[in-house]
Amino acid sequence: MTRRLLAEALGTCLLVAVVVGSGVMAERLADGNLAVALLGNTLATGAMLCVLIQILGPISGAHFNPAVTLVFFLQREIGFGQALAYVLVQFIFAALGTAIAHLMFDMAIFEPSLHARAGLGQLTGEFIATFALVIAILGALATAPKAIAPIVALTITGGYWFTSSTSFANPAVTFARMLTNSFSGIRPVDAPAFMAAQIAGAVMAALLSRWLWKKTTTPAFLAKAPAA
Amino acid sequence: MTRRLLAEALGTCLLVAVVVGSGVMAERLADGNLAVALLGNTLATGAMLCVLIQILGPISGAHFNPAVTLVFFLQREIGFGQALAYVLVQFIFAALGTAIAHLMFDMAIFEPSLHARAGLGQLTGEFIATFALVIAILGALATAPKAIAPIVALTITGGYWFTSSTSFANPAVTFARMLTNSFSGIRPVDAPAFMAAQIAGAVMAALLSRWLWKKTTTPAFLAKAPAA
Amino acid sequence: MTRRLLAEALGTCLLVAVVVGSGVMAERLADGNLAVALLGNTLATGAMLCVLIQILGPISGAHFNPAVTLVFFLQREIGFGQALAYVLVQFIFAALGTAIAHLMFDMAIFEPSLHARAGLGQLTGEFIATFALVIAILGALATAPKAIAPIVALTITGGYWFTSSTSFANPAVTFARMLTNSFSGIRPVDAPAFMAAQIAGAVMAALLSRWLWKKTTTPAFLAKAPAA
Amino acid sequence: MTRRLLAEALGTCLLVAVVVGSGVMAERLADGNLAVALLGNTLATGAMLCVLIQILGPISGAHFNPAVTLVFFLQREIGFGQALAYVLVQFIFAALGTAIAHLMFDMAIFEPSLHARAGLGQLTGEFIATFALVIAILGALATAPKAIAPIVALTITGGYWFTSSTSFANPAVTFARMLTNSFSGIRPVDAPAFMAAQIAGAVMAALLSRWLWKKTTTPAFLAKAPAA
Repeated sequence: MTRRLLAEALGTCLLVAVVVGSGVMAERLADGNLAVALLGNTLATGAMLCVLIQILGPISGAHFNPAVTLVFFLQREIGFGQALAYVLVQFIFAALGTAIAHLMFDMAIFEPSLHARAGLGQLTGEFIATFALVIAILGALATAPKAIAPIVALTITGGYWFTSSTSFANPAVTFARMLTNSFSGIRPVDAPAFMAAQIAGAVMAALLSRWLWKKTTTPAFLAKAPAA
Repeated sequence: MTRRLLAEALGTCLLVAVVVGSGVMAERLADGNLAVALLGNTLATGAMLCVLIQILGPISGAHFNPAVTLVFFLQREIGFGQALAYVLVQFIFAALGTAIAHLMFDMAIFEPSLHARAGLGQLTGEFIATFALVIAILGALATAPKAIAPIVALTITGGYWFTSSTSFANPAVTFARMLTNSFSGIRPVDAPAFMAAQIAGAVMAALLSRWLWKKTTTPAFLAKAPAA
Repeated sequence: MTRRLLAEALGTCLLVAVVVGSGVMAERLADGNLAVALLGNTLATGAMLCVLIQILGPISGAHFNPAVTLVFFLQREIGFGQALAYVLVQFIFAALGTAIAHLMFDMAIFEPSLHARAGLGQLTGEFIATFALVIAILGALATAPKAIAPIVALTITGGYWFTSSTSFANPAVTFARMLTNSFSGIRPVDAPAFMAAQIAGAVMAALLSRWLWKKTTTPAFLAKAPAA
Repeated sequence: MTRRLLAEALGTCLLVAVVVGSGVMAERLADGNLAVALLGNTLATGAMLCVLIQILGPISGAHFNPAVTLVFFLQREIGFGQALAYVLVQFIFAALGTAIAHLMFDMAIFEPSLHARAGLGQLTGEFIATFALVIAILGALATAPKAIAPIVALTITGGYWFTSSTSFANPAVTFARMLTNSFSGIRPVDAPAFMAAQIAGAVMAALLSRWLWKKTTTPAFLAKAPAA
């Protein structure tokens, strides 16, 4: 169990450091062209997400995301205690990821975001983003489990551009992005609705996937660590 | 059959949501630099197309495209009834994709496009784009069927940039792009000629492929659902 | 033999249509930012090159390049007659690729390029570019022949950016680029020196590869067509 | 041993030529938009790094990096003499890579960089960058050794954007970048602290990886050359 939690901690922390750090870098260099900034932010996030899922998936399943952990709990793949531990670790180390990004870029460790992200459109965006993420995860497990790392990374790569909210799609990452007043931030007041839309999208995808694919459980090679 | 149609519906709908949604995002952020906008539009479309073909291909073959369904009908891989059902579902859910993209970006559900796309050059572009798409599909089935998802995604990624029409290459997606007055739109009056050029390119590619590769049929793993 | 030549013809023609066409598109849209234009040009070329090698490699070896054909002739993998036929087809259909690109973009079928590309720096660039291309091809054949398509595509993707000449690395493509007065063109007077540098780089790489890898011959699956 | 050193020499030299050369190209074309310049620099580096590791890994292990060689020495995978030879070759041929890039772009062979890169933030960036690189290498060896080339390339692709120092992550490359007064350069006075942070990050990752994965040794296919 310790080794699994360590993998979730490392993966979630580095993922957030990438999301926040590349957002700061992109904003500083892009000379006001936000599309160019989003290209850099997207490239970095997709690349590192692929790496982290590939190398940490065999240890913990590489959730890095409370919405994903919830789906696997609802599918009875992991128990309540493990799910709760995963989610706690994800929130704590997501926040640490923001701190590391800020340390790298000589910013205050935490700063509340002033970046407003609200309205029906953006909440629909988060619903669709997390729906697409969970459909991709469960579809990959059913059809090409060894390719799950690039499939998930490509889904987030696409999501950054096609959803109006730029695909947070992750309650722990949303929490960590409350703590940065930079390109990737979100006002704390806007975060709860984002998280609710994410959970709704994830559950909807899990229900639909039961109809689409018969088998969507995690194969042994993605979670071969002993249960304790 | 229901499960196949559900896969075509979900795939075509999400594909159009990506094409239209990333076009809106790109145009809003790119500060007038249309090449930067097209980079974002291309990245999102290629990424999600790869994901959708990978996870839905084993259910329905992942056509998402009446021109592709026509080719498989001409090759007698699917019957007339199934082909007709595929095409109807593709047109209806392509339109739904535009609606979802507009909902995400706080736009009217449908709006007729004012974006003129016409002339011999652009029609040649659509002919070449769909020719290249079908050659890539049939070539992948003959030489590397397990890699069909990235091969098709790379073909569209390239096509967005090298064809003068930015590679619609899909009558259902063309129909759905009539319904959005944004970056990816096309005037309804220009759509029929685009669709005709697409059909011509697809048929030409199917004919040529018979000479190039002996075997271009769909392998079992891409259509393992029972026929009804 | 006919089928092999058809594959070389189709691949070289489409490759040049991509190089020239995406150059025109990029230049038209990029609003004067040549780095953005080169990004689009690179993305399209890398993507389609990967597709074309993957689907046509099993027929003809997917040379599309007289310098590559020369290397395989020097390694005695193909005879003089076949090599000559390949090279003739490559030059003719490379020119056709320029014509198709111009047709798509409503330009004159051929127009001599005024784009000066000369000097020791750029010739060194072509030497290095073709050296890297041939090292990548022979290295891939020795270490990971099934991955040759992405390896070659990535080499050209990198080459467009790190060599001062933007990696023509192909005498037939150089010839075809003489015929377009657009982003990717080269003045006819500058082309012979480019071609000489390309041949020199290719031969140097072939010599070095004999020391690095013992086996660099084309595996059966990349050239399984009967010899006649 | 000679063949291994030749592979390290060729790989390190070409890698630096790509890093420096694409930096010069990007800066010249990007019209002052440094984010666009970094996109080109990133794309070229990631693409060629993937190619070089794939084709040269089976000969020398494709370290190209004294910090990586140190890690394999600490893990007792290579002896002291071989490690020392690797490191010497890496430093010398990294410098040659800068010279080749300068030759291609008509610049003086060497010129000391004036590009200041210092401060706690950037040193943290180098620590994190090299930590991520070594975690990715050891994680790939433990979980998917055949995919090590894309995994490492994606890590550097991400690192260029999410670390404040743009991920040098390599003492030999840092040395070579002292010798170019262009986009990718670093003032000689700033280099030693960068190298120290890189070593610290590499060692930290090696320690953590022992806890995360049981087996992180180089599989036979990545170092099948005889020891002498």
